[in-house]
Amino acid sequence: MAPMFHRMVIAGVGLIGGSIALAARKLGLVKEVIGYGRGEKNLRWAQRRGMIDRYFLHERDIPEGVDLLILATPVQATVPIAKSFLPRLEPGCLVSDVGSVKARIVEDMEKLLPRTMPFVGSHPIAGNEQWGAQAAAAGLFSGRRCILTPTRGTDANALKKMARFWRRVGARVEFMSPSLHDRVLAVVSHLPHVLVFALVNALARTRADSIDLKDYCAGGFKDFTRIASSRPELWRDICLLNGEEIGKSLSDYISSLERLRGWIRDGKGALLEREFTKANQVRAEM
Amino acid sequence: MAPMFHRMVIAGVGLIGGSIALAARKLGLVKEVIGYGRGEKNLRWAQRRGMIDRYFLHERDIPEGVDLLILATPVQATVPIAKSFLPRLEPGCLVSDVGSVKARIVEDMEKLLPRTMPFVGSHPIAGNEQWGAQAAAAGLFSGRRCILTPTRGTDANALKKMARFWRRVGARVEFMSPSLHDRVLAVVSHLPHVLVFALVNALARTRADSIDLKDYCAGGFKDFTRIASSRPELWRDICLLNGEEIGKSLSDYISSLERLRGWIRDGKGALLEREFTKANQVRAEM
Repeated sequence: MAPMFHRMVIAGVGLIGGSIALAARKLGLVKEVIGYGRGEKNLRWAQRRGMIDRYFLHERDIPEGVDLLILATPVQATVPIAKSFLPRLEPGCLVSDVGSVKARIVEDMEKLLPRTMPFVGSHPIAGNEQWGAQAAAAGLFSGRRCILTPTRGTDANALKKMARFWRRVGARVEFMSPSLHDRVLAVVSHLPHVLVFALVNALARTRADSIDLKDYCAGGFKDFTRIASSRPELWRDICLLNGEEIGKSLSDYISSLERLRGWIRDGKGALLEREFTKANQVRAEM
Repeated sequence: MAPMFHRMVIAGVGLIGGSIALAARKLGLVKEVIGYGRGEKNLRWAQRRGMIDRYFLHERDIPEGVDLLILATPVQATVPIAKSFLPRLEPGCLVSDVGSVKARIVEDMEKLLPRTMPFVGSHPIAGNEQWGAQAAAAGLFSGRRCILTPTRGTDANALKKMARFWRRVGARVEFMSPSLHDRVLAVVSHLPHVLVFALVNALARTRADSIDLKDYCAGGFKDFTRIASSRPELWRDICLLNGEEIGKSLSDYISSLERLRGWIRDGKGALLEREFTKANQVRAEM
């Protein structure tokens, strides 16, 4: 099969960007894969491993003939990097991203890019608490969801092409509006991260004589708090960019904790049991 | 080695009680193991499997000569069951429990039992979200902590004997006051359970068009919410019996979420990053 793209630039050759590079090369979806990033050591490593054909470090060095630009940096960097490439991007270049936040990025990208450089917002739900090119794998997206977030302004052909690209690397493609995406992700991913970061810190803060509470965390707690190992600056950015939805979920969650606190204080056993039983049932369906 | 006890009654032959029975029989720590409980089917199964020698269903049928009574029921049942056995218990019988809550149980048991029937509060930290005799295993306590919670009223010989018993079944024995135990467990176990029950329900409650948010929960979320599969009535009882400490932890946690919500709303990136970085470090030490 002919490659879908001639020259793909991946900005941010980390877990996600590196996995896209590996999958695209392995499947022959792209003729040439070029990395961009701040850390030369990481890029050199990716090149040696055959993850990328070559790389560049300064925006002005972006090569000619790029027909697919994938922004795979932390979400706050997505729009600024696109902006810095813009003067050298050529008409017909398809631009996409992989960020966990969509509404703000899609809106800004649509404002930034001319019609000749269509943007398609993507979010492959395939991360974990690892990071860096060394955690990348060609099969990372296999069987995982990739949500594309078209708007009324999205170029239909570009959307079709990105959907095909994601399906080829193994993802199950779905479509949502950017704002619906952000509401869903706030609840299933962003809120849980905030909660666990806060819980681990509560643990560290609690005074219990000379006891180090960390020593008393059983396996369950460790599973539970694994996501507190996630990259702080990445989650800071997600909180800032999806602040409205995360704030709403957090408020709703705080209200439910206040309700539970009241029931615990007042000894409302039947209400507690009903709440816990409901959670049991929801969890069983997951 | 001679058995430590002649006749052990285990009230509640579930995950913990069944594992004690298995380990004690396997190691010859007890001459005879007798089960007590409400569910005859479960007890019959335990007997067929050689977990217990025999069982009884009514308090009045407790045999003579019991020198170790282990209360391994949900925490709310511990004291009432001890009370129902009391008229038929003989002087010299050592009484212990395995509950995740100690202060209230220890206080009530010390009030209930005469000096001739010493009580030692125990808590083997070895549970998981499974339950029932079928999940029991002789090695469940191996390498796991068992916290004994003596008070000024605790009989020194009984305490020594229970510590030896737990060490023989493989546990690492520690000593704490009942109230310190309850503070520690509120943070490392009880609070996390309440949080996850509430989170799973928040997920079920969130409306996002026709989307079922459960479908969007990645592996991380599922690990994270596994403890929502825990037994509702057990956690209801823990919340009621350790309400004060859980309430305190919950209040502290709600405050920290409110602070985070403010930082998210006001775009305080540096504060968010510092908070997440701290959690990263704490988690790395776990």
